[in-house]
Amino acid sequence: MIPSHIEHIGIAVKDLASSIKYYENILGLKCYAVEEVKDQKVRTAFFMVGQTKIELLESTEADGPIGKFIEKRGEGVHHIAFAVEKLHEALNEVEAKGVQLIDKTPRNGAEGLQIAFLHPKSTGGVLTELCSKPERD
Amino acid sequence: MIPSHIEHIGIAVKDLASSIKYYENILGLKCYAVEEVKDQKVRTAFFMVGQTKIELLESTEADGPIGKFIEKRGEGVHHIAFAVEKLHEALNEVEAKGVQLIDKTPRNGAEGLQIAFLHPKSTGGVLTELCSKPERD
Repeated sequence: MIPSHIEHIGIAVKDLASSIKYYENILGLKCYAVEEVKDQKVRTAFFMVGQTKIELLESTEADGPIGKFIEKRGEGVHHIAFAVEKLHEALNEVEAKGVQLIDKTPRNGAEGLQIAFLHPKSTGGVLTELCSKPERD
Repeated sequence: MIPSHIEHIGIAVKDLASSIKYYENILGLKCYAVEEVKDQKVRTAFFMVGQTKIELLESTEADGPIGKFIEKRGEGVHHIAFAVEKLHEALNEVEAKGVQLIDKTPRNGAEGLQIAFLHPKSTGGVLTELCSKPERD
């Protein structure tokens, strides 16, 4: 596996609207999409910076993963996502090398991508996502 | 100010050598430089992923900023750096919009870049760096 680029940086925020304002008015980026991912209990907002997206994550329920993250650590960087070519193969490869997987198989993420998370215990404290465009059989 | 890309992601690590192994052997990236930045009390290791660098940061002294960060929060993402065209102007612009600056003027960072940090209190918990190539008079 060789990641081609940083697909996105996931950032946990308390209030999506005010965070969108910050990224637009201060950093000069443009929010191009807001999307709800129900099974993750989040609303997301996307900005493009070169090859990489900033993905803001607001919890829709206090007991969701982002709600719990903010309660424990406050707002800030939640995860880093690397773009890979074939997600199935990449997951098999890293698991064979001893990495603990949160997602044993790819699942649907925002923007139609296939995604899977690696456990931060195996990745030096960085919650790491691998993602790819859907694979064709 | 419109950032052109994510210049790098700074990641605090306890042990540079073992973290380099992880990024090379598991994620398939290639460490192309190791550099000490004495006034920051860190040793850094760089990897390229598309347009963006992963910058691993190991504290050379326990009382350095990375040493303190790890003591408080553990290993993980330390900061996000956005590439801008003219750092002086960008700093003036964000300060005029109410952002608290850690560095009022650009200073020297790794790899010959001019850098400045914005305070995470003003940036939604994300320690944010702006950086540019040295400006010519």
